[in-house]
Amino acid sequence: MRDAYHEELDAISDSLVEMARFVGSAIGRATTAMLDADLKLAESVIEADDKVDEMHRDLENAAIALLARQQPVATDLRIVVTSLRMSADLERCGDLAQHVAKVARLRFPDSAVPRDLSATILEMGQLAQRLMAKATEVLLTKDVELAMQLEQDDDEMDSLHRTLFSHLLDDRWNHGIETAVDVTLLGRYYERFADHAVSIARRVVFLVTGEHADEFTPEAERATEPGA
Amino acid sequence: MRDAYHEELDAISDSLVEMARFVGSAIGRATTAMLDADLKLAESVIEADDKVDEMHRDLENAAIALLARQQPVATDLRIVVTSLRMSADLERCGDLAQHVAKVARLRFPDSAVPRDLSATILEMGQLAQRLMAKATEVLLTKDVELAMQLEQDDDEMDSLHRTLFSHLLDDRWNHGIETAVDVTLLGRYYERFADHAVSIARRVVFLVTGEHADEFTPEAERATEPGA
Repeated sequence: MRDAYHEELDAISDSLVEMARFVGSAIGRATTAMLDADLKLAESVIEADDKVDEMHRDLENAAIALLARQQPVATDLRIVVTSLRMSADLERCGDLAQHVAKVARLRFPDSAVPRDLSATILEMGQLAQRLMAKATEVLLTKDVELAMQLEQDDDEMDSLHRTLFSHLLDDRWNHGIETAVDVTLLGRYYERFADHAVSIARRVVFLVTGEHADEFTPEAERATEPGA
Repeated sequence: MRDAYHEELDAISDSLVEMARFVGSAIGRATTAMLDADLKLAESVIEADDKVDEMHRDLENAAIALLARQQPVATDLRIVVTSLRMSADLERCGDLAQHVAKVARLRFPDSAVPRDLSATILEMGQLAQRLMAKATEVLLTKDVELAMQLEQDDDEMDSLHRTLFSHLLDDRWNHGIETAVDVTLLGRYYERFADHAVSIARRVVFLVTGEHADEFTPEAERATEPGA
């Protein structure tokens, strides 16, 4: 029974990693589609979200089947329940990548992002993709120190978001209201995408250490490690 | 065992209803705080979100404890897993109400919403609150027909959202970029709040009928009922 259980649990874990890779790639491609006004690429991201939804449904069903058949308790149970929550985070990230791609499609053949903001948006897009790549790595390795890094990366996202707002609210803004609305929503999508990546990393920290990320001090942990 | 199980399940169900009532009230109060530029009310909504987060954590722990102790299968298992997901929806609704209240606080002593948009924002706020009241009722009664009504209410939210955008993109817009950014984000918050209420209703439909809300046809259901 334990073997079947671990096989099923591994399959769920693999699916999470696959979903995380998929949505990480999607946010990258959506950003490129928007900055390059590439309609074909935008449409491929929009269509690909069905695949994320499907992965999410499959994972949910696999988790429920595992709970029913194996009836795990304690940490094992918490891992399965947490996987469900992570899958929901990743499904939402797929939606957010799709939203970015839809803005690109809506404004085609123009780019939704004015030239003087494209560097900031590119940075937000790249950071979002990097955060998801790290979250994927955290899912694979359960590396708590790496998980803590995502908090700092998220501070960087907040800072980029502030930069975006300072452009928007600058008296010299001359791109009109429609672009202001687009840029406001895009900023929100990237910020939420980052939140979900951070949330995944935090859940791993909680599973590994039994402590919430904001209570966890890596220093204290290291001090009790052999050889530290 | 079954009795203890049903008591625990009822407690979870009661908590969901309590959370739904709480966040429904929060979005109503946040809207009032914003339209009236009432700082005290805004701050009370901002602080009250801790309570929602706490309810969510408690519910999550209760659900995990129930899974561990009672090891439900089949529909019972799906009810518990779905409750976890609904709790996450409601926790997010609490955040969204808090976001609205924070916009109110940020713009105090002004109102974030210009006078010619306050009717639309009021309608969005009221509709969000009504959607959550209906979702609460659906949680209590498992009334599938009522659950289907939420889909139509959500269409109304989309229509209000379009009205908001048509104001924003009207050439006569003269409230500047900052207000455009505020109104864009507020529109997004109400729309997401409504999405979560609809999502809760859909999950109840799935639990009751075994069909996803978009596959479910109440007419067919009625025709097979005795006396129909």
